[in-house]
Amino acid sequence: MADNGISRRRLLGTAGATGLALGAAGGAAGYAAAPSEASSSDRAASLTSLGADEVMFHGKHQPGITTPVQSRGHLVAFDLAAGAGRKEAAALLRRWSATAERLMAGKSVAGEDTDVARDAGPSSLTVTFGFGHSFFGRTGLEKQRPSALDPLPDFSSDHLDKARSDGDLWVQIGANDPLVAFHALRALQKEAGDAARVRWQMNGFNRSPGATSHPMTTRNLMGQIDGTNNPKPSEDDFDQRIYVPATGATRDPSWMAGGSYVVVRRIRMLLDDWEKLGLGDQEAVIGRHKSDGSPLTGGTETTEPKLEKAGKDGKYVIALNAHARITRPDQNGGSAMLRRPFSYHDGFDKGGEPDAGLLFVCWQADPLRGFVPVQRKLDRGDALSEFIRHEASGLFAVPGGAAKGEYVGQRLLEA
Amino acid sequence: MADNGISRRRLLGTAGATGLALGAAGGAAGYAAAPSEASSSDRAASLTSLGADEVMFHGKHQPGITTPVQSRGHLVAFDLAAGAGRKEAAALLRRWSATAERLMAGKSVAGEDTDVARDAGPSSLTVTFGFGHSFFGRTGLEKQRPSALDPLPDFSSDHLDKARSDGDLWVQIGANDPLVAFHALRALQKEAGDAARVRWQMNGFNRSPGATSHPMTTRNLMGQIDGTNNPKPSEDDFDQRIYVPATGATRDPSWMAGGSYVVVRRIRMLLDDWEKLGLGDQEAVIGRHKSDGSPLTGGTETTEPKLEKAGKDGKYVIALNAHARITRPDQNGGSAMLRRPFSYHDGFDKGGEPDAGLLFVCWQADPLRGFVPVQRKLDRGDALSEFIRHEASGLFAVPGGAAKGEYVGQRLLEA
Repeated sequence: MADNGISRRRLLGTAGATGLALGAAGGAAGYAAAPSEASSSDRAASLTSLGADEVMFHGKHQPGITTPVQSRGHLVAFDLAAGAGRKEAAALLRRWSATAERLMAGKSVAGEDTDVARDAGPSSLTVTFGFGHSFFGRTGLEKQRPSALDPLPDFSSDHLDKARSDGDLWVQIGANDPLVAFHALRALQKEAGDAARVRWQMNGFNRSPGATSHPMTTRNLMGQIDGTNNPKPSEDDFDQRIYVPATGATRDPSWMAGGSYVVVRRIRMLLDDWEKLGLGDQEAVIGRHKSDGSPLTGGTETTEPKLEKAGKDGKYVIALNAHARITRPDQNGGSAMLRRPFSYHDGFDKGGEPDAGLLFVCWQADPLRGFVPVQRKLDRGDALSEFIRHEASGLFAVPGGAAKGEYVGQRLLEA
Repeated sequence: MADNGISRRRLLGTAGATGLALGAAGGAAGYAAAPSEASSSDRAASLTSLGADEVMFHGKHQPGITTPVQSRGHLVAFDLAAGAGRKEAAALLRRWSATAERLMAGKSVAGEDTDVARDAGPSSLTVTFGFGHSFFGRTGLEKQRPSALDPLPDFSSDHLDKARSDGDLWVQIGANDPLVAFHALRALQKEAGDAARVRWQMNGFNRSPGATSHPMTTRNLMGQIDGTNNPKPSEDDFDQRIYVPATGATRDPSWMAGGSYVVVRRIRMLLDDWEKLGLGDQEAVIGRHKSDGSPLTGGTETTEPKLEKAGKDGKYVIALNAHARITRPDQNGGSAMLRRPFSYHDGFDKGGEPDAGLLFVCWQADPLRGFVPVQRKLDRGDALSEFIRHEASGLFAVPGGAAKGEYVGQRLLEA
């Protein structure tokens, strides 16, 4: 079982569900009440679930992994500034952790606040920190670099923009209010100060809580239900698949105990081409019904596909190159990853096509047993591949959650 | 009083308020239930306010003017394609109106739907259509062009990008769910077909309903409460200030009865500079307290500023160049406009500064008595001007709402 405060109770797969009024009202009382304001306790009492929902910063694992996907997200990579090394990085992670803890509790930043999130509750804000391959060289910590951070293999279908890939440090921000998310982004960027600069930054979104009554996974911009086969924190082997174990003979350095590896990909969807397909052809590409996510072989979203079932024409009902067949864990040596994406839409390009798609974010204990084998297989024969384009990529080591009084990454930076 | 279906009851100024469960549950039942789905009535019954809220398409005025600001918005301008004229424009507005009506009721598009909004309720979707100055020449309708569409004067502080300004047609989409908004954007773009092409498109956002318990206007990315002095639909002269009258001696063509003129500006905020100011300096620039929007001369957000009040130093408490002083209607010959903006954030530029600010959208019966005199005054001496940059501009004639069986703009295009 995942052990991460409130997110333990608010499991994945309920992201679109409503009425999960588990918010801690105290989180909304973080701003000191100015004389002319209603008392902060009055405000907290009348906050609805969306604003009052609070995710815990401290825990065995960092927040933002099993937290239900939020309606707004920012992904940011930073590079350490010239001259900044281990000492500056440690101070930065200490500042960032303190601020993340405050903001996730609905408080203002310790210094002068921009007030952009003022009056709003925590709104399920999460902040998650990771380290890229290049971080370890910059800080003289090569010996602590996990081999799991070795560069991903090249995939034939990659069209990667290096300027929007990789980075020394990675920050994921999610919240159910866009101003709360932006406020956190600005606060963390400002705190980077002279120690680090933004390398790339991407904005994403998911469905708003309450927009649908379906207790289901979200839809992506192709209209597909996304994340059906995600491992669930209630499953016995969830921790083993997603988190680096605390003890035992692993190839991971000890500072990664309780951590996870995240693969981030900006996957553009070629929506004009996709939407020219009829519904039947789209469903053949995926292997599932678009309406409800059920396999083409029948049942509901959670029914196991009958991969061996043939139609009257003697062909498999779920084609050999159908996306759902290729990505199934039992077709990939039991590998599993937890996909927790945001959609993105950055307007239209000059040809009038939308620059839109998926900020694919997936979590696993070992990328070589999670993302890599699946992507290798997709790269060879996924029917979906002609409708998508991987435009940016990153792989980051996300350490375990900070204990009280500790900052994220302390076990690495002060080892 | 505004007369626009549900928006009549959901007045401006309550945008951030919660619990306005006025949604029409029927709106969520628009998708035909596939055999494997729960019955549509089951789904509708359990939708919360956010998803079920429905704004009426038909009415005296178009939706999206007095509708409370939504958490997600798209602004799009189209240019008619070469060879497309009045006939094609009429057919396009007829298609667009039919689709806007369906989508605002939570239904799918009449043809094949992308399914991106499937399962979601209407989520307060609004679609608003307008005509730019160039539209009338392209369609041979010069004689019907309102003189109010004459180009705005140049302002000394403008830094306008022509490629992101103006346009033959303007569409504003707003919804409280990002997927519902994107779905509408794609549907309308696809229906433009060969008749029109996207000229520019901008994405915006506001606070999510429920994120705050304050029944207040929203905050912008500078942290200021925005829209305090907006005219309210409950005020006697609201219609006169915002809408073109149905009868009488106005200089507007008769097809604009019940319509309004919208000024759209992409106003970049120079946030790095702004945030370097201390709180006191920021408040002096605006003339209001940042915490609660009250004037520097005391009171609450809605207290009238005491513009003549001087401090111990003999200077005005609210400086002569304070933004709040310059923009007050009683300082501008009684002009008034209804501001209904979205914030925007398009990532960081190469210098590491956020490309973020305000998609300023303001409504008035006459731009020469609304936006223009205020902007002229701001242009001369607004203390805020060094922290913002107007980067794009548009002015559009937004006709009255369509009656049942009518499409938006029909009174112009079939006159």
